[in-house]
Amino acid sequence: MNQERLRLDPIGVVHSPWKVAEGTPVQSFVSWYLDKGWQEGEPDGLACPHVDRRGGRGTLEIDENWQDALCDLDGFSHLWALFWIDRAKPAVPKVVPYRDTVERGLFATRAPSRPNPIGLSCLRIVSVVGKFVHVTGLDILDRSPLLDIKPYVPDYDSFRTASRGWLEGWSSQEHVTTADDRFSRESLR
Amino acid sequence: MNQERLRLDPIGVVHSPWKVAEGTPVQSFVSWYLDKGWQEGEPDGLACPHVDRRGGRGTLEIDENWQDALCDLDGFSHLWALFWIDRAKPAVPKVVPYRDTVERGLFATRAPSRPNPIGLSCLRIVSVVGKFVHVTGLDILDRSPLLDIKPYVPDYDSFRTASRGWLEGWSSQEHVTTADDRFSRESLR
Repeated sequence: MNQERLRLDPIGVVHSPWKVAEGTPVQSFVSWYLDKGWQEGEPDGLACPHVDRRGGRGTLEIDENWQDALCDLDGFSHLWALFWIDRAKPAVPKVVPYRDTVERGLFATRAPSRPNPIGLSCLRIVSVVGKFVHVTGLDILDRSPLLDIKPYVPDYDSFRTASRGWLEGWSSQEHVTTADDRFSRESLR
Repeated sequence: MNQERLRLDPIGVVHSPWKVAEGTPVQSFVSWYLDKGWQEGEPDGLACPHVDRRGGRGTLEIDENWQDALCDLDGFSHLWALFWIDRAKPAVPKVVPYRDTVERGLFATRAPSRPNPIGLSCLRIVSVVGKFVHVTGLDILDRSPLLDIKPYVPDYDSFRTASRGWLEGWSSQEHVTTADDRFSRESLR
């Protein structure tokens, strides 16, 4: 295997209402709750033509040389965004995740500090216009490098009865829904 | 953004029954069909202590320095494996995907030739033993570099009613289920 090949070249950038880790939804589903009028945890966001804080609305902006690859995407309701978690601090094998109070193995969590900090978010597609994919459900920091877009296909991706490990028993509504800075590089300063 | 940071350092390796693209299940769900006794499309596999072709059974072997990060993973039934698709040929914006007969925008497909060839597979966890995660549902080529493991959490990941774009109307059972070499680097020789 040629190690030189294991380099990433972003295909675009994420425009998001979330500017810092603290107050950012811990997962996409929290952004969707915001869309229903739930107002807690909204951080101060900078004005930006591409974003709207309600519902984690924003835009994936694709480099023009990959614009043609967006064809047919608007037939799907959801997509997977893969992105580089560029502001997470270095990874360690055990962490206290946002939604628990005790240490867990990192690979049993979705914590952003990972040996290869590749983020995975399921977003709802609002529209595809030229090189812009307008979405809701963002849990991604603004200006994050975008690595890939894949269509969400329920046949491949939806396993509703999968067991939830240490998250079993946690309710999304009653538990932690927004991040703090525990995994943020800013917390190292 | 520091481009030097966009480098990947594998956390381990995938041991799989699939040695070449041709005949490999197009998605994990096909491997699970194999587990039910469906025998079509099985390629010739080399004998290997870590793998069993039935059901795409195999093993994720984690580097010892990340072994502690596997703690708590065995409480989940499924995981996301992120891996480097190291034997795909270079990406182009439009492709004829395995499961269709006309060109589609690459980002509306799960074709393996991508600008950043990061594979995403949902695998069933059989057991976690030391640095080994035994799984079923492999649609990954043997010896692929492993980049990340995340727990599958249905609250975050399961959207059964998501619309399926150009795949709408295709039945998993009646349509293409195994790959050919159209996206394989071997086809360039």
